[in-house]
Formats: sequence, C-alpha cells, structure tokens
Amino acid sequence: MNKHLKQVLGSVLAVSALAGAASAVAQQAPKPEQLIKWRQSAYQIIAWNTGRVKANVEGKYNKDEVVKAANVIASLANSGLGSLFAAGTESGKGWHDTAARPELFKDARVGELAGNFSREANELARVAVAGDVATVKDQLGKLQRTCKACHDDFKAKD
Amino acid sequence: MNKHLKQVLGSVLAVSALAGAASAVAQQAPKPEQLIKWRQSAYQIIAWNTGRVKANVEGKYNKDEVVKAANVIASLANSGLGSLFAAGTESGKGWHDTAARPELFKDARVGELAGNFSREANELARVAVAGDVATVKDQLGKLQRTCKACHDDFKAKD
Repeated sequence: MNKHLKQVLGSVLAVSALAGAASAVAQQAPKPEQLIKWRQSAYQIIAWNTGRVKANVEGKYNKDEVVKAANVIASLANSGLGSLFAAGTESGKGWHDTAARPELFKDARVGELAGNFSREANELARVAVAGDVATVKDQLGKLQRTCKACHDDFKAKD
Repeated sequence: MNKHLKQVLGSVLAVSALAGAASAVAQQAPKPEQLIKWRQSAYQIIAWNTGRVKANVEGKYNKDEVVKAANVIASLANSGLGSLFAAGTESGKGWHDTAARPELFKDARVGELAGNFSREANELARVAVAGDVATVKDQLGKLQRTCKACHDDFKAKD
C-alpha cells in the first residue's frame, strides 16, 4: 500500500501492527487470504446496498430501507477498507482470486479515489434522512461514478 | 421466514416485493444464490469488525478504530439481514453451501435472537463513542454471546 492511500484511509495498518505487537499471544494478524476474503465481502455488501437504494429510487420508495442501506455503505466507506489491502495481498485468493490489479497497490490516485467514495457515501447517508427521492437518486449516481472510477483502472475485467 | 422474524427485522421483504412489482422491467429480484452470498458476506464483515474490536480491547486501544468497527457491526445489525433469509434460500450455495440449518426458517425464537443481536450491537456502537475500554470489552462479550446463541441452534457445525 502506498503512502497516499495510507494517509487518506487512516493509519489502521499501523494500529493493527501495534495491537498485534502488544498482544502477540492473544491475537494473530489475519492472513492475506482472510484480508482478501473480507474485502471481497465488503464490496458484495456495498453492492447489495447500492442495489437496494437503486430499487427504491426506481420503484416504490421506502425511506426507512434507503436510510438503512445508505448507513451500511457509509459505515463501510468510513471503516478503513484500506487495511484490507495490506502488503502481501497484492495477489491471492479470498472467496476467489483477487480482482485488484497490481497498480492499485502503487498508484497515489487510489487514495484520492477512495476519499471520493467515502465523501459521496457519507453524502448519500445524509440525504437519505431527508428522504427526497430525486436528491437520493442523483446522489446514488454520484456514488456509483466513484465506484466506476476506481474499477476502471484498478479492478481486473471479468 | 416465519412471522416473528419478519416482525422483528422489519418488513424489508414486503418492501422488496412491492419495489420489484413496481419496476419489474428495471429490476429483477436477486436470486437465492445471490442472497446467500450476501448473507455470508455480511457475517464475514461482522467477524472482521468484532475481531478488530477484540484486538483493541486486548491490545493497544484505538478509540477511532473501535468506533468505526462498531458502526459497521451496528449498521449491518440494523440493515434488515432477515431479507437475506427469504423463502427459497433454505438451501443452496453462495460463496459456499449455506450453513443455515433448516430450523432457522421455522423457529419463532430466531426473531428474538436477531433482536438481541441488534440491541447489543447498537449498545456497542454507543459505548464505543465514550471510549471506556472496560465497558467496551464487556459489551463486546455481550454481543458475542448473542452471536453464539444463534449459531448454537441455527448454524451447521463445521
């Protein structure tokens, strides 16, 4: 993971390393395969919940469901997902072979793109509470463009 | 899914059904395999974040990381996970064969157990903000007991 990404996503790695040193007997650092599995799970959960918001803005709107879904997305966007891209996870298999391209671990733009994702996810959670459908729909589009921006350059094509 | 579970976890299923009917062209209801994959992902994310809280209370404590992790757990506990146990998902394969036992889909206690999980997850998010390590550790234990209570009866053994 590059410096820029670490700065933007927080010093979760450093914290984990310290925590690991302090309780080496009680805790083992998660294996790369586990980290990859967790990040693949995180993006599945983000997809589940963006899909729920999309179904609401395109169909019958349920504000309560949109708020719940937006809160899940925002909590993950704020969770320090960067720690799941720790050194040693550049390749390997979680649920499946990682789709992260090698460039993701080297390119300073990743931190900026991750920051954009967090910003738009937090804004979605914010506008979801007000419950204006057009605003939520517009914000969902902004969020999804931040997903695409990163996938375009840093996710392997199927 | 039984009535009790539906009541406790909210009427997400009904909402989804309505949304589906309203935009049948735009949206397809997710397939059972997708729902199973999402619920398996959700529990992985819960495990990732309970592990983070555990590492903090047993090692060097970082309040910011604990708050982030607790917010992820709470957002998922509040998200309507019951919708991922919809009819048709009693068996099948997501990332792997479901570990949900058939009884989960029939037993009225499941709703109560899910409610206990949500309550303790929300309490963990609440006490995380205050940042008292002993309180957080105690609350993590309470949360983990609600996980175990459900796993004991409704999750297949490895």
